Parts: sequence; structure tokens; C-alpha cells
Amino acid sequence: SGLVHIKNPHLDSMEEDVLYHLDLGTKTHNLPAMFGDIKFVCVGGSPNRMRAFAQFMHKELGLTGNAEDLADICAGTDRYAMYRAGPVLSISHGMGIPSISIMLHELIKLLHHAKCRDITIIRIGTSGGLGIEAGSVVITDTAVDSSFKPRFEQVVLDDVVVRSTELDKDLVEELLACSKEIPDFPTLIGHTMCTYDFYEGQGRLDGALCSFSSEKKLEYLKRAYDAGVRNIEMESTAFAALCGLCGLKGESSC
Amino acid sequence: SGLVHIKNPHLDSMEEDVLYHLDLGTKTHNLPAMFGDIKFVCVGGSPNRMRAFAQFMHKELGLTGNAEDLADICAGTDRYAMYRAGPVLSISHGMGIPSISIMLHELIKLLHHAKCRDITIIRIGTSGGLGIEAGSVVITDTAVDSSFKPRFEQVVLDDVVVRSTELDKDLVEELLACSKEIPDFPTLIGHTMCTYDFYEGQGRLDGALCSFSSEKKLEYLKRAYDAGVRNIEMESTAFAALCGLCGLKGESSC
Repeated sequence: SGLVHIKNPHLDSMEEDVLYHLDLGTKTHNLPAMFGDIKFVCVGGSPNRMRAFAQFMHKELGLTGNAEDLADICAGTDRYAMYRAGPVLSISHGMGIPSISIMLHELIKLLHHAKCRDITIIRIGTSGGLGIEAGSVVITDTAVDSSFKPRFEQVVLDDVVVRSTELDKDLVEELLACSKEIPDFPTLIGHTMCTYDFYEGQGRLDGALCSFSSEKKLEYLKRAYDAGVRNIEMESTAFAALCGLCGLKGESSC
Repeated sequence: SGLVHIKNPHLDSMEEDVLYHLDLGTKTHNLPAMFGDIKFVCVGGSPNRMRAFAQFMHKELGLTGNAEDLADICAGTDRYAMYRAGPVLSISHGMGIPSISIMLHELIKLLHHAKCRDITIIRIGTSGGLGIEAGSVVITDTAVDSSFKPRFEQVVLDDVVVRSTELDKDLVEELLACSKEIPDFPTLIGHTMCTYDFYEGQGRLDGALCSFSSEKKLEYLKRAYDAGVRNIEMESTAFAALCGLCGLKGESSC
């Protein structure tokens, strides 16, 4: 049907669904009217960049009105920012798995309530490249954890559930084909490693704490490279797991 | 000496330290002049609330100038927001352990470079109460993980290091004494549970995914209560671990 899959039997019996961190809700907003025609959702960490991206899309799509005037749909909260340009929704998610997870749970319910169909969702955040030219775009085939395993460990109450982190293979090829139409746009397909920590978790030597040597850092990053990792960031495993479970065609290109 | 402890032997040999996510640095800013006299740091998730808190402190301390004019010291980035009111620094940290960890690494280095002494740091974020009156403030004696254990598991490269999550006992008592001076200000001391996920991790029945029953949820929350947990949030274990390791007198009261 192309609809978003909600896997929560409790939701049907709720009178109202408040999407608290988006400052939206099923009783306060007409979600099908506001979002029913959305086809693409782009997400990234920074609110300013996601506004700039929506303005860019507004111009690229030749939409009427001034792109500078695009309003933050989540203006009532400062947790996330959301803008739309025609069929494209652009949303910030902050930094790290817990932050993107809250946004995605509420976004997925939003798309469900709005009866959206055939949604494509792309993470367009920043990442650190590994053994590749600076400025390259890495299209993620599989998101892996800090042990280079294609899995996301989700704690449900006090149980640990392991989830798949595969992304949409067709979309990977489509995005790579798009990149080839643009000159001097270094793009490659690779694994993306997702960590819980920016400093100690990604081998940085300049955090407030650092207990490893430069050699140990390089040995770890070399092992990551040999396992197919081409970039490192902090959201992709949770993003891939949630998209996969909810039937969203998802990709990450950072 | 009351100075902040940096546990990173690499830092001394760096020519410049760029605190990237705060848009500050040792070569671009005179950190001792800007921050050397800071004595209190308050942190919370939302940038707007941390601005409001700084404005509140500005008025409470009877400082000169208009509290409404307080400028965001990190205005060059939208990752975090930072305001000061006299000896009090007020900083946002976003949602979740990865987000607060990035901010704390850079804040701790900032306090080190600025040669600050005898810093007290308090997290004043929001949390969900457990079996207590709505609106209560919980002063955390110990932060616990989703298994109710007083520990923070930090991934360092691909090793897992277990860190203590005890907070400053004297500060706990001091804050409780302060609360008693204010009428109708329900305050208690308890354990704070820190999770990686807001929906599935905290027993919520209204996420995009929910695989447990209302009974299973209540059974889990009851076990948490019996283990001494009085509130649930998403940053306290990492906050406690980093404060403890870096010699910061830290407390969480949410």
C-alpha cells in the first residue's frame, strides 16, 4: 500500500496522539492536510542547515513565494526544527542516537496519521570520512556499530533487542547515479560506522579524556577501513533500524 | 587545587584546541578572560530554557544591564547555546547521552583552558517522575542505567569501559537544604535512571514501535521504583561519569 507501518497495537485506542517534541498533535493539527502529499523527508543534525536545505529545495523546485520566508513548522518547541518545500520535508534531529530516535518515532507517527504513501527518507548529515578524499559523500550500504557489525542494539525496557541496519539497495544505486550527473562530486558507496561517542568512541585525541595512543587509534581506524567502513557518524544504525521496521525506503548519504 | 582535571596526555602538545561544537577555541578566544571567574555551570537540554535560566539568574543576582539582552556565547553554531550571568554559565546539551557527552568534553576543556577553580556543575533538565507528585524535583544521589545499576558503559574505540556514576554527596544535601527554604517546593533525593531511548526504553505505550503490554510496562517501572529510582531521563549516567573523572563537583536535579 506504500503506507508507513506503525508497529504499536496501543496507538489505535488512543483518543489523541501528541507528538510532543514536534509540538504537533492529532487533535490540534490537521495532519493529513498539512503533510498528506509529502513524498520525501530529509533529516540532518543541525536546525540551521535543515532550514538552508529547505530553502535550497524551494528554489530548485521553482516553488512560488520567497524561500527566505519558510516557517519552522515546529516553532513551538526548540527540540527540533521542521520546514517543507513542496513534497519535501526537512527536519533536524540533533546529535546522537537517542536524539534522532525521539524525532523518528514522532515523525513516523506523523507520516502515519497524515496517511502519507511511498515516502523516501534520506539522512543528509555530516560525518567523518575514513581514508577518502575530504568533502566526499558516502552513500551508506549498511550501517555498522563500533565493532563493525551490521546491527543496532535497542534496549526495550531492560531487554536488549538486536535489529537489522540494512538500508534500501535500490535507493543506494539511484543516489549514486544522481551523483554522476554532477561534475566533481566525489561520491562512493560504503559502510557507515555509528558510535555513541564523538571523542573516545571515534578515536579522537583531543577530548577531555583520552586513554589511548595515536598508534592504537590508527590501528582501530585501519581495522574499521578494512571492514569496509568509509565514514563515521552518530545516528545511522538507529535510523536504518527504525526505517526498516516501519517500511520506510531509507538511505543515509553524509 | 580546585582546578578541572583533564585526563588526556595529548592535549598539552596541541598548538591550538578548537572547541568545535561550542564555536570557541584557544587561539580565537581569550578563554581565561572570558570564563576564568565562572563558579557555577548549569546545563539542561533545551536552548530556550537555558537562556531563560540565565536571564532569571541575571535578575536574581541583581546584575547590571538588561537580562533580555544576554547574548548566546556560542552564536556561531546551532549545536548548543551558552549564556552567562555573573559567575553562572548556562549551557544547553540537547537530548541524550551522545549529545551531552560532546558538550561536556568541550566544556571541561574550556574550564581547564580558562583556569577555572572550584566549579560546581548542576544539570537542571526535565525528567519523568516515578511514583512521585507531578512537578517534584528529584535530587539525584546516584544515576543508574536501565538495569538499575550505578554504572556508565563507555565505548572507547571498541572496548567497553565501566565508569562510576556517583554524584557529589555534599551537594545533594546542600540542594535539599535550599529546597526547604522555599514553600511548596516538593523535593526529594532518589536514584535517577538514565536510558538511551525515550519510547521503548522508558516503557512508553505511544511510540511508533511498542512490543510490550501495559502490564509489562508497569511491572518494569515497579521494579525500577523498588530499586530506588524516582525519575527517568537520558543524560545523568554520562554526566555523573564525566564529572567524577574530571574532578567536577556535580549534581543533577531534574
